[in-house]
Amino acid sequence: MTDASQYTIQHEPFYQATGREVELYQAAYRSRLPVMVKDPTGCGKSRFVEHMAWKLGKPLITVACNEDMTASDLVGRYLLEANGTRWLDGPLTTAARIGAICYLDEIVEARQDTTVVIHPLTDHRRTLPLDKKGELVNAHPDFQLVISYNPGYQSLMKDLKQSTKQRFVAFDFDYPAADVESTILQQEANVDAAMADKLVKIAHTARNLKGHGLDEGISTRLLVYAANLMRDGIAAGDACRMALVSPITDDADIRSTLNHAIDAIFG
Amino acid sequence: MTDASQYTIQHEPFYQATGREVELYQAAYRSRLPVMVKDPTGCGKSRFVEHMAWKLGKPLITVACNEDMTASDLVGRYLLEANGTRWLDGPLTTAARIGAICYLDEIVEARQDTTVVIHPLTDHRRTLPLDKKGELVNAHPDFQLVISYNPGYQSLMKDLKQSTKQRFVAFDFDYPAADVESTILQQEANVDAAMADKLVKIAHTARNLKGHGLDEGISTRLLVYAANLMRDGIAAGDACRMALVSPITDDADIRSTLNHAIDAIFG
Amino acid sequence: MTDASQYTIQHEPFYQATGREVELYQAAYRSRLPVMVKDPTGCGKSRFVEHMAWKLGKPLITVACNEDMTASDLVGRYLLEANGTRWLDGPLTTAARIGAICYLDEIVEARQDTTVVIHPLTDHRRTLPLDKKGELVNAHPDFQLVISYNPGYQSLMKDLKQSTKQRFVAFDFDYPAADVESTILQQEANVDAAMADKLVKIAHTARNLKGHGLDEGISTRLLVYAANLMRDGIAAGDACRMALVSPITDDADIRSTLNHAIDAIFG
Amino acid sequence: MTDASQYTIQHEPFYQATGREVELYQAAYRSRLPVMVKDPTGCGKSRFVEHMAWKLGKPLITVACNEDMTASDLVGRYLLEANGTRWLDGPLTTAARIGAICYLDEIVEARQDTTVVIHPLTDHRRTLPLDKKGELVNAHPDFQLVISYNPGYQSLMKDLKQSTKQRFVAFDFDYPAADVESTILQQEANVDAAMADKLVKIAHTARNLKGHGLDEGISTRLLVYAANLMRDGIAAGDACRMALVSPITDDADIRSTLNHAIDAIFG
Amino acid sequence: MTDASQYTIQHEPFYQATGREVELYQAAYRSRLPVMVKDPTGCGKSRFVEHMAWKLGKPLITVACNEDMTASDLVGRYLLEANGTRWLDGPLTTAARIGAICYLDEIVEARQDTTVVIHPLTDHRRTLPLDKKGELVNAHPDFQLVISYNPGYQSLMKDLKQSTKQRFVAFDFDYPAADVESTILQQEANVDAAMADKLVKIAHTARNLKGHGLDEGISTRLLVYAANLMRDGIAAGDACRMALVSPITDDADIRSTLNHAIDAIFG
Amino acid sequence: MTDASQYTIQHEPFYQATGREVELYQAAYRSRLPVMVKDPTGCGKSRFVEHMAWKLGKPLITVACNEDMTASDLVGRYLLEANGTRWLDGPLTTAARIGAICYLDEIVEARQDTTVVIHPLTDHRRTLPLDKKGELVNAHPDFQLVISYNPGYQSLMKDLKQSTKQRFVAFDFDYPAADVESTILQQEANVDAAMADKLVKIAHTARNLKGHGLDEGISTRLLVYAANLMRDGIAAGDACRMALVSPITDDADIRSTLNHAIDAIFG
Repeated sequence: MTDASQYTIQHEPFYQATGREVELYQAAYRSRLPVMVKDPTGCGKSRFVEHMAWKLGKPLITVACNEDMTASDLVGRYLLEANGTRWLDGPLTTAARIGAICYLDEIVEARQDTTVVIHPLTDHRRTLPLDKKGELVNAHPDFQLVISYNPGYQSLMKDLKQSTKQRFVAFDFDYPAADVESTILQQEANVDAAMADKLVKIAHTARNLKGHGLDEGISTRLLVYAANLMRDGIAAGDACRMALVSPITDDADIRSTLNHAIDAIFG
Repeated sequence: MTDASQYTIQHEPFYQATGREVELYQAAYRSRLPVMVKDPTGCGKSRFVEHMAWKLGKPLITVACNEDMTASDLVGRYLLEANGTRWLDGPLTTAARIGAICYLDEIVEARQDTTVVIHPLTDHRRTLPLDKKGELVNAHPDFQLVISYNPGYQSLMKDLKQSTKQRFVAFDFDYPAADVESTILQQEANVDAAMADKLVKIAHTARNLKGHGLDEGISTRLLVYAANLMRDGIAAGDACRMALVSPITDDADIRSTLNHAIDAIFG
Repeated sequence: MTDASQYTIQHEPFYQATGREVELYQAAYRSRLPVMVKDPTGCGKSRFVEHMAWKLGKPLITVACNEDMTASDLVGRYLLEANGTRWLDGPLTTAARIGAICYLDEIVEARQDTTVVIHPLTDHRRTLPLDKKGELVNAHPDFQLVISYNPGYQSLMKDLKQSTKQRFVAFDFDYPAADVESTILQQEANVDAAMADKLVKIAHTARNLKGHGLDEGISTRLLVYAANLMRDGIAAGDACRMALVSPITDDADIRSTLNHAIDAIFG
Repeated sequence: MTDASQYTIQHEPFYQATGREVELYQAAYRSRLPVMVKDPTGCGKSRFVEHMAWKLGKPLITVACNEDMTASDLVGRYLLEANGTRWLDGPLTTAARIGAICYLDEIVEARQDTTVVIHPLTDHRRTLPLDKKGELVNAHPDFQLVISYNPGYQSLMKDLKQSTKQRFVAFDFDYPAADVESTILQQEANVDAAMADKLVKIAHTARNLKGHGLDEGISTRLLVYAANLMRDGIAAGDACRMALVSPITDDADIRSTLNHAIDAIFG
Repeated sequence: MTDASQYTIQHEPFYQATGREVELYQAAYRSRLPVMVKDPTGCGKSRFVEHMAWKLGKPLITVACNEDMTASDLVGRYLLEANGTRWLDGPLTTAARIGAICYLDEIVEARQDTTVVIHPLTDHRRTLPLDKKGELVNAHPDFQLVISYNPGYQSLMKDLKQSTKQRFVAFDFDYPAADVESTILQQEANVDAAMADKLVKIAHTARNLKGHGLDEGISTRLLVYAANLMRDGIAAGDACRMALVSPITDDADIRSTLNHAIDAIFG
Repeated sequence: MTDASQYTIQHEPFYQATGREVELYQAAYRSRLPVMVKDPTGCGKSRFVEHMAWKLGKPLITVACNEDMTASDLVGRYLLEANGTRWLDGPLTTAARIGAICYLDEIVEARQDTTVVIHPLTDHRRTLPLDKKGELVNAHPDFQLVISYNPGYQSLMKDLKQSTKQRFVAFDFDYPAADVESTILQQEANVDAAMADKLVKIAHTARNLKGHGLDEGISTRLLVYAANLMRDGIAAGDACRMALVSPITDDADIRSTLNHAIDAIFG
């Protein structure tokens, strides 16, 4: 049996609630309902899940999904050893056995076979068949499945099927309100309120450009980067261009608009 | 020989019949006719098959099909061990040997080679050739094959061939009638009739939107989720948005329509 | 050497000839001409080949072709064992060695490399080169190759090349005449002539819809299913809908047409 | 060293020359020029190459190319054995070592990497690098490469590159003249001249339909099949339909035209 | 534990700064921010990263990304050995363990799964889960991730997702100013200022053709090549055609324009 | 350490220079500049590279690139042996270690990952990272990389990226001048000047058809073939049709034009 303690969150992760999401998640967990977390890029869904695992005192196993991930990567496989083959549980199987919260990050990236294997874990059966091993794992009573899903990436090719979606309750996240985001910057990057407020203003400018030449607004994470650089003595213009402009676009017009905003706000 | 008892359903699964399906299935089983179960998402076909296996007292082996599943995943493969290779029966072969009901869930997801391997099991031969092992398995007299098939997913790329379809008798399922569905909610989530009826009303609103912006109506399963949350003290609006709206659509208009219905019915 | 007796047909398979096909096949076999069998779905080509193998007293090895089948699946491969690798003949090689009739079912489904490997077995050479083993197998004098081919599945992507087709003599099958088909139903499902005739009438209705909304007519096999259910006491309407309507179409109009025919004929 | 004798043609293969091809091939072989043989389906190119190998007294190694054939299938590979890996020469390497004629049949079917490996064998180098073994094989002085190429299959996707084509001298084959083809039928199927002439007439009718509904004319091989069946007592109409019509087309109009010709010629 | 010293840059790599990039990189490193380096072809981004690793005294592990690179190539894999399987850390894992700067060159070339594995290394977690080994690697405090990204190669198929981009601060590089580039040529190829200036002039002519028939301007690297050849006694025309014209275009008009410029400048 | 002598060219390969290419190549080698050789089909680039390797007294390792070649085929791989796995250097690694000229023939055929692995060998680093072995190979001072590139095959799908092209100096080859080509024929095929001149004339006719129905002109190699056959006593018409017409085109009009030219020149 895997030692669950290695997956336990040791310290409370900083998380600034933006609504009733903590209370609602707790109710979902009490009924062991599978949970889907939706948000635009960089709004802190990973941190929310970590926070909830910490709060509930349950181990957390996170899997970053990708398009080359197979069902075996989740469920487990046989390893060849000196004395023949040995079965190695995958992260989903481990979570089901030890009663962890299993968090499948960016599930739409995964191949569809990986989404099918979660089905029997997400209905009244709460089982995981290990076809290759000939074992039927009954999930631990504490086990819960959480997936993240970025609706912005939906496409005909890459979307969850309704038969998968309808196995989850869902949380919609969004960028935090201006004052909340400013507080986050002050806490995370140790800058003062004035500097934090200015960075949030730039973010709002960029987020308004979403769909008008920008695929995605500036995330809270990039604001933290810029704040870090400024606290370290880098000039506001350099820090913002390096953290808020160059990474997200190569379009000359959008860059110019963002640079004007930076100059206007910090100038 | 695999121990059949591990695949036996121990307790009667709750199943609310909606027509003559139980009697008809029993007749199909008496002639060992292969069975195809069709339904929209979340109407309980898995539970129906479980119920029938329990009623008939036969072991049930369920395989969730996916597009990366190969014929070997069904039929079996050689494993490398310390003393050479060892053959491991796949779930279909096990079912054929022990006389189980083998349920291939969402068969259209599987690669076509997996559908071809079931052909000799579904006609007068009732055999399964293990080409790689050089063995011809004669199915146990109790063996029966059941597949599920969601006609809504049909496409040019993913549909069963007529030469496969014409090997099955078929059952069409649909959402249960309003009173039956309400009963299900009361039994499954332990809520009162008034609350159950209101949830069914919301479901009917959403199901009418199918084809008008919604790919699929709200399933009975999601209604049970919402009922669970409400019984746990979550406000009706929060519970319904979390269980009935957010998971199934990101379209702002459809969400607005559904939210209005929720407010009107629970308001 | 493989024991040929395990591939011998023990009991005469029921087969109702519809023309001179038995006599013609015998002549083809006397010259060891490769044979191609063409038919729409479910007309009994597999049973015809079984019948001929029984009549000729030759072992029969059947391979259900599929799109993931490689030449190695037909010809053989090395298996890894405790003392190194061991060669395992594939079904085609076994048939060539023991003098069996090798029946490749639905050959167009296979990858083209599998069709190329049969070429030297189908001309004056009658050899099978096992490139990976460095052996050239000379076919047993009794060996014959039979393939089935469904012209309805032809497409630009999936058709036999002329250089393959022109290695075979061909038999065209079709649905049996009404009286023959009725006899088959009476014998196979043990129903009376009246009931059998009515089922054949429904089949004729459906076969006329082929190309007008139906991809394929109702096969004799499905009629046998319906007859089985009715003999078991299921009402004609239920039996026909379950065996003749639901499996073959989800189109509401076609279903309605078929249901009317059922009601009219049995009503 | 492989024993070359197993690849030696023991008996003179029947071959009816249709021009100066034998003399020209001999000259090409004297200069060890690589040879390309072009023909429509079933004109006997394989038999010509066999005949030349027999006449020149050289071993012949034939490889039927296919789209899943890799360079390793030609060149060789490491096999895993009890004492580690062992190198196994592929057919091309064997031919280069023992001085055989290596005949790559339907080379356009092969993946391009297989055509690239033959390049250093077809210019002044006459070498074959075994990259995976770290060996450079110098071809035996008797080695010659022959490929067949069906120009009718050319397409953008599947054609030889000029850098490959320009490494060969080429022979164009065609259907034999009427009297030559009749002689072939008399010799191969042991039928009289009158019957042979009639079959050749049917073939000419069909060959005129090439490009007007038929992809390819009737090959000499199919005429031999029909002659075989007639010699065995099968009626001319049955034999011709089975050997000359059914295998090559499912088009009702073309079938009707061919049947009329058969009835007119044999009637 | 891998010996970090083998990845240490021994000698100061020549690097001519073109702005404040050295200072800004140092600030980014102090906060351990992940860095993205953008430039057109051949502007010296690899050398910049080497220079910074040398300046910071940290080991540098470079990985040239390619479209067949899998996550396992970065993270590690099991090797089969005499006593069973042994885990071998990939370059990214090694870098995370020893505290190196890990430089993923041309990251957009890699398959998306390789970009997903870097996510947990680029946020507050700074961890790398080795799913196949069941280990969670906590990055060494000195570890930093650097990627290069050529915006000119962006396409719908090959672009970083915003959820990846927004994990980096970015540096935009460009061709050096004329005097800086001339200095580089003089130092690298040991030519005099006059010759270096002339080569830079030709480069400017070619860079103006970018988008007007040329995909990319002439890089500093090719100028160094031409200078090397001229220092070695090759005539200016030959050296420039060989190093500056032939490699970059086969278009007759563009070649003519470039040749005129070469003749005019050196003539 | 591999024995370099097996890669040494023993005898001077015949090479007829057509310009200053020998001198320019020597200068490129002195600076160890990577070299790209461009030519139409069959102009002798392979022989030029062999000639230069002989002249410089360096070993030559040639790799014929193909679309299934992986980076591992160039760099090396682990082989499984009785005592575990053993690393086997690929040809590029061997060349880098022993100081050979490594010639990658038809590089555009290779998958892009193979072009990325050559990058660090073609700039100031002159290193080859063996990621799977955890070794960084420093190239031997004598090592040089040469690639060939046929601009006629360029396409959107198959072209070198500028970031690869700009790592090479390039040589453009073309068909030799008429008198040079005639000399080559006389020397290679031992024919007299009159016959050689006539063959060159036919080649010029065909080369003028390039782009007007012919993909590529007749190469010098094919002229040598025709000359060989004529010296062996084959009539001029037969020899030319077999060596100069049949291999390169199946178009009836082009064949007719070429045949007229042959008859006019030799008639």
